[in-house]
Amino acid sequence: MDLRKRIEAANAAYVERKGPSGHPDRKWAILTCMDARMDPVQFAGLADDAYVIRNAGGRVTEDAVRSLVVSAKLLGTKEWYVIHHTECGMASFTNETMRALLAESTGPAVQEGGVWRNAAPFLPGAETAMDFLPVAGEPACLIADVKALRAHPLVPRTIPIYGYMYDIHTGKLTEIEEASEAGRPLR
Amino acid sequence: MDLRKRIEAANAAYVERKGPSGHPDRKWAILTCMDARMDPVQFAGLADDAYVIRNAGGRVTEDAVRSLVVSAKLLGTKEWYVIHHTECGMASFTNETMRALLAESTGPAVQEGGVWRNAAPFLPGAETAMDFLPVAGEPACLIADVKALRAHPLVPRTIPIYGYMYDIHTGKLTEIEEASEAGRPLR
Repeated sequence: MDLRKRIEAANAAYVERKGPSGHPDRKWAILTCMDARMDPVQFAGLADDAYVIRNAGGRVTEDAVRSLVVSAKLLGTKEWYVIHHTECGMASFTNETMRALLAESTGPAVQEGGVWRNAAPFLPGAETAMDFLPVAGEPACLIADVKALRAHPLVPRTIPIYGYMYDIHTGKLTEIEEASEAGRPLR
Repeated sequence: MDLRKRIEAANAAYVERKGPSGHPDRKWAILTCMDARMDPVQFAGLADDAYVIRNAGGRVTEDAVRSLVVSAKLLGTKEWYVIHHTECGMASFTNETMRALLAESTGPAVQEGGVWRNAAPFLPGAETAMDFLPVAGEPACLIADVKALRAHPLVPRTIPIYGYMYDIHTGKLTEIEEASEAGRPLR
């Protein structure tokens, strides 16, 4: 069964069992990684009450700030959680590596012995100056991200921001106190 | 029970029942909205095989492109799905409204009779030129987003990109053919 048919079949089954949807009472937001091995609904017990923002690495980008600010300003979120995880693919490369791979080919790369190389056949490449925001060490990256978020002028100082690391194997969330400290309410 | 305690309790229960995590066999990516009423794992039957990118509106931003390009280049995703939804909060305001509200206060706003206004008490506001990417009409916005994604120089032309609208009440996914057409593989 092709992927689209499978998604549509899963969706048809979901439509049958779905309950009513209301806006949540308990309003909070979570920013985490796109990693396929993570399901925030399960690992954080979301129960329809959290706005979920995900990108490569769970990084604090302008787009993540945009989404979080909308969540606070128009949707009334009261607490934010930034969750990075162990063994993140974003820690396996540098911008220079990624840009060189893309300049050669936009097609998939493979990693062997810790080294990324383009897989044959090549597809047309593209020069880029994009910052891919690789993760250069945890929990330092998480702590820096939470501090940057806290310092953003559009972020209300009354919102507590907590930083957690997620263990990709056990599923356990561990609060990184230095990150969370940076996010304590200021009043 | 406060929110952090509740999340940590849900997480402890999850750690007990969690199975092993491997990288997915069936690799695809989904870009959708942060809306608390949507659970992609349920509505699309994800089963650990999709990278999930979420932001306010499910919009095609540079950050979403960054994440999708990483998913294709380093994680081997083969199909991408962009999913917007009905009754999106991003369709309830303009950039001008949002910027005026934020310049007055970074605290929560309330909507009455279709008009957003700041709720008292005010918190220090902040001037911004941020583009909040409000949605000015669907499915036109979805179609434009998929076309922009398809046209991005870092996006491999071999990846099919499909556009769907999600009905927030029924949970039903409906393919928007004009969006998906724009994403047909080019070879």
